[in-house]
Amino acid sequence: MNEYLDLINKNIVTYLDNNLYQHNEPVHEAVPVTNAIKYSIENGGKRLRPTLCLLAGELSGNEDYIDKCMPYCLALEFIHTYSLIHDDLPAMDNDDLRRGKPTVHKQFDECIAILAGDGLLNLAYEVLLDNISKNPTEANIRASKIISSCSGIVSGMVKGQVLDMYQASNTKETLDNINTYKTGALIHASVLSGAVANGLSENEIKSLYEYSIILGKAFQIADDILDVTGSVEELGKNIGSDAKNNKTTYASLFGVEGAKVILEELEAEAIGKLSIFGSRAKKLVELTKYLTSRNN
Amino acid sequence: MNEYLDLINKNIVTYLDNNLYQHNEPVHEAVPVTNAIKYSIENGGKRLRPTLCLLAGELSGNEDYIDKCMPYCLALEFIHTYSLIHDDLPAMDNDDLRRGKPTVHKQFDECIAILAGDGLLNLAYEVLLDNISKNPTEANIRASKIISSCSGIVSGMVKGQVLDMYQASNTKETLDNINTYKTGALIHASVLSGAVANGLSENEIKSLYEYSIILGKAFQIADDILDVTGSVEELGKNIGSDAKNNKTTYASLFGVEGAKVILEELEAEAIGKLSIFGSRAKKLVELTKYLTSRNN
Repeated sequence: MNEYLDLINKNIVTYLDNNLYQHNEPVHEAVPVTNAIKYSIENGGKRLRPTLCLLAGELSGNEDYIDKCMPYCLALEFIHTYSLIHDDLPAMDNDDLRRGKPTVHKQFDECIAILAGDGLLNLAYEVLLDNISKNPTEANIRASKIISSCSGIVSGMVKGQVLDMYQASNTKETLDNINTYKTGALIHASVLSGAVANGLSENEIKSLYEYSIILGKAFQIADDILDVTGSVEELGKNIGSDAKNNKTTYASLFGVEGAKVILEELEAEAIGKLSIFGSRAKKLVELTKYLTSRNN
Repeated sequence: MNEYLDLINKNIVTYLDNNLYQHNEPVHEAVPVTNAIKYSIENGGKRLRPTLCLLAGELSGNEDYIDKCMPYCLALEFIHTYSLIHDDLPAMDNDDLRRGKPTVHKQFDECIAILAGDGLLNLAYEVLLDNISKNPTEANIRASKIISSCSGIVSGMVKGQVLDMYQASNTKETLDNINTYKTGALIHASVLSGAVANGLSENEIKSLYEYSIILGKAFQIADDILDVTGSVEELGKNIGSDAKNNKTTYASLFGVEGAKVILEELEAEAIGKLSIFGSRAKKLVELTKYLTSRNN
């Protein structure tokens, strides 16, 4: 599925080696938070958000699109990983399994999990500001701003988590609102940061904007279905947690089959938004199909 | 003590009104995290970090130094407040009193406290990137980068909290290392961001750099002394917590009187670093004296 997986993983490890680990002696007893960051971020994952960023950047035809995308790839994965660590905490979703291994607070402790999350979130902005400092272009400033607003409490991921924890999600409208922020916003930021950083036209950016909004919805519905039909082995996390927590999902509202029909419609709609790019969007189309039919 | 207090408070409230609250209906049951942010950040505090930023900026003689400093003032206070909310959590320092009121997880709950902290940290970077977007100057990029690195896990505040939680602080050297990151880094960032954003000379920035490092040390020693000699009424937080948690401090290493002598030496040393500014640094000298002799 992912030609970029090794590249992304290599860049994450190299960045952490050259920055975080070097200054904090990862094997030192006194800095277990560094070990926790290593544990959580080097523990696999699909690297979906960095991949979307690279595929959007690749549409530009720029020779150096990978270099232009990489700071965003790191920042997006740092933010995604921090959100998983904090969401898994006992006071939040109270999950003990993630990517087939104990969650950070289970493997280490709650204090470490909170600090590892805080550290990763801040690190994302250290990467983005360092990139702006080295390449102070309007495109880099705009792309970084997109990531910050899509991650926050005003109109981003933290707002989505708040809504998910405290809003009664018993209607499709409420659920869509939660999903827009909780999952959609960072997927949206992934696609747009790659596009903006690589100077795509405003018309192309508009199409990718619409694509990413639909993709975010589809991704969450696929997640809802997998929580019912998936296995712990395939997913690497506990299943049935939505039902256990009495959460309304597309699967509970429309049944698994009903949710699958909606998912197929969204897949077609998302791919339609990519038509402006013709065959250049082949990989992005493939990824979209993969994401809506995935089993993990 | 602080001619800037009202100005800072007004700007914080206005920013949150126009951004966070407006989009998240603060009185709505579904968004208690917004209420928690309002509760924690509008709950007084000395606003030391924004004040330091403004006093450093004022040294420039720029007519618009307040405008140039204000984004940093907001970001610094958002970061400081997030760190207090997270540090107070049961898994960390487990404090139930802050600024004379219940801590956020006591007044609300742990989930809200974690998310309020995450939201505030991200909001700080939304402010900084928005400022860079509107005024993409080298000075703004550099000042924002200083704040990000002084807040993080590589060489900033989160690293300090990690060291404080996990490193045996039984020698002066270890204690100094913890203090450098945990308290010193953000005080350092406060002074330097105001100076850099207002275009002070590299020579002036160097003096302020040295000043802020010493001030950070002095501030922490004053805190150590107050944890022994202060009262709950004056401090608005529980006292004796260092002794309770078996933490090594300047007071435990040198006794209260010994710590006071060291504090006086640092005060003189810090003020000496400001001599390059002559009478222009009058307010900063006064603040330094106030901070080293404060009773809250």
